[in-house]
Amino acid sequence: MSAKTPNPDNVRPIIWHEDHLQLLDQRLLPGKMVYLDYGTAADAATAIRQMVVRGAPAIGITAAYGVVLAARAAYRIDPEKWRTAIQPNLDMLAQSRPTAVNLHWALQRMQSRFSNIEGDPEPELLREASTIHAEDIAANRKMGALGAALIADCRQVLTHCNTGSLATGGYGTALGVIRSAWQSGTLEMVYASETRPWLQGARLTAWELQQDNIPVTLIADSAAGFLLSQDQVKWVIVGADRIAANGDVANKIGTYGLAVAARHHGVQMMVVAPASTFDLHTLTGAEIPIEDRGADEIVRCAGNQIAPDGIATWNPVFDITPTALIDVIVTEKGVIHRPDQHKIAAIFQ
Amino acid sequence: MSAKTPNPDNVRPIIWHEDHLQLLDQRLLPGKMVYLDYGTAADAATAIRQMVVRGAPAIGITAAYGVVLAARAAYRIDPEKWRTAIQPNLDMLAQSRPTAVNLHWALQRMQSRFSNIEGDPEPELLREASTIHAEDIAANRKMGALGAALIADCRQVLTHCNTGSLATGGYGTALGVIRSAWQSGTLEMVYASETRPWLQGARLTAWELQQDNIPVTLIADSAAGFLLSQDQVKWVIVGADRIAANGDVANKIGTYGLAVAARHHGVQMMVVAPASTFDLHTLTGAEIPIEDRGADEIVRCAGNQIAPDGIATWNPVFDITPTALIDVIVTEKGVIHRPDQHKIAAIFQ
Repeated sequence: MSAKTPNPDNVRPIIWHEDHLQLLDQRLLPGKMVYLDYGTAADAATAIRQMVVRGAPAIGITAAYGVVLAARAAYRIDPEKWRTAIQPNLDMLAQSRPTAVNLHWALQRMQSRFSNIEGDPEPELLREASTIHAEDIAANRKMGALGAALIADCRQVLTHCNTGSLATGGYGTALGVIRSAWQSGTLEMVYASETRPWLQGARLTAWELQQDNIPVTLIADSAAGFLLSQDQVKWVIVGADRIAANGDVANKIGTYGLAVAARHHGVQMMVVAPASTFDLHTLTGAEIPIEDRGADEIVRCAGNQIAPDGIATWNPVFDITPTALIDVIVTEKGVIHRPDQHKIAAIFQ
Repeated sequence: MSAKTPNPDNVRPIIWHEDHLQLLDQRLLPGKMVYLDYGTAADAATAIRQMVVRGAPAIGITAAYGVVLAARAAYRIDPEKWRTAIQPNLDMLAQSRPTAVNLHWALQRMQSRFSNIEGDPEPELLREASTIHAEDIAANRKMGALGAALIADCRQVLTHCNTGSLATGGYGTALGVIRSAWQSGTLEMVYASETRPWLQGARLTAWELQQDNIPVTLIADSAAGFLLSQDQVKWVIVGADRIAANGDVANKIGTYGLAVAARHHGVQMMVVAPASTFDLHTLTGAEIPIEDRGADEIVRCAGNQIAPDGIATWNPVFDITPTALIDVIVTEKGVIHRPDQHKIAAIFQ
């Protein structure tokens, strides 16, 4: 790592640069910091699918900027019919990842502007995408403060996957709470699970926390249960890719096992996610589609083959944690203790 | 993988070849099959420490052969004082790995022969080491049959780490049960967790099962909780590195989390281990030393660095599963349902 690496609190995975989208290629972190340029919605969808950018809020923001690119191209071809002409691009963006609902939320919010636009849609849509981006960062700051207040007496926490600046517009969801708690002075240590298969914990969270000088200890995913039995960690803090109306949480594979182990040990489970992660049309977690990313991520690690040729795999990259195992959900709209359908509905009223 | 790869049921990690020890270098599997030659006890101890050979029964057998090498060298120097001269070598072998008790058991069993030996100790000690080796295979066959009878109605199981031919004298402990169950015809699928950091599941178990044509599906360690929630897997079957007098089990990191998740879902937890794995002088799991293998195994995967430079890690490579979370322990002496101190003492009487 170069000493000149920017503070990751200020690292942005997504930048609108002059007339195009730039995405930090998260597949290369922490070894290399490379921004890739995107001028079309189709390329942005491919970037989401190939995980140049990942993290539910971050892919929602990327999709919003993708709509800007799609509308510009369609308007140049036919200024009258751009709204219908971009539909294939919107579908492509919507289908780029199946589990995170922020993607659909962002696309719907962008589409809701279409009817009021006259003439060139780019300025208005770029304003909306930038607003979505800025609101995400503001929501993260708000959630950081709300969540940090909950763990004011907690010295050690465990987090899973990456929910930081890299997974969001900036600052982070679960990692935003951790950043805020660290700034408040009581937090002493963050345990980060490496998060196979894609190693978001080892590659991204460890790096973000290290760059912020927040003490972080990296563990194998399977060490989490033993860690929680040691009576040091009082909170497990994670993000979410989709939260159903009843509070069931789809999040990175392994979250469910952490929730079971946390409950077994009386460790509290906190989920931190903006309102855009809630899907009130999905009643329970059983209805949430779980992405299977295939064998390659399991058969390989860091580019090298680790398992025998031709091995069968099961690679669900998300799991469902039932609401009963979640102690608190933190959103920018407020904190929901022991979440259920009624409390969630109330916060969205 | 070459089509000429031998059937792993017949693969032996440890071979006494003419006048020296040969160990299959498990660090290179499944990509390469290389046997290394060992002519001294010190080199054998290094091989254990560096995990050329691993698995509690296998390192016990390796240590037994190491005593043969140590005694030969000491006898050549001074035929009168070989018993005391080899003590540093015995200590070195004993200290090569801290958690598995089979190592100490094998060394004590070898030492118990010393007083009856007259003249050159090599023939007698080689006979004893070979007996330990053969008895381990026989115990595994016995446990295979006992364990398979318990899961006669079970179609899918989950196993962790590698407990097969490669971890033992041959056939395997937990994997021996799985082999026997497969032969009996009811087992349809084995899920193998990859077992970071050393990837024994991905590299060794997947390979052993694949070569035996036993259907195996490889998963990330953190997918185990979600898998157990799917109501397909009825048993988790693992080995052990040390079992305390009360039935607490030290085994590969992640075993404890599996046991917690299994109990949460009503999935049964089976531990398969020969008598040599029991340490009746250790009252509970709290007294069992847990090896920490340092940062490198966490920071790297398959030889490539995955985490940022200088990151702190916690790498306990074993954990303790309390006896209350274990439904059955299978030994060659019999099956212990809902194990406790009295039942374990009874089986050793």
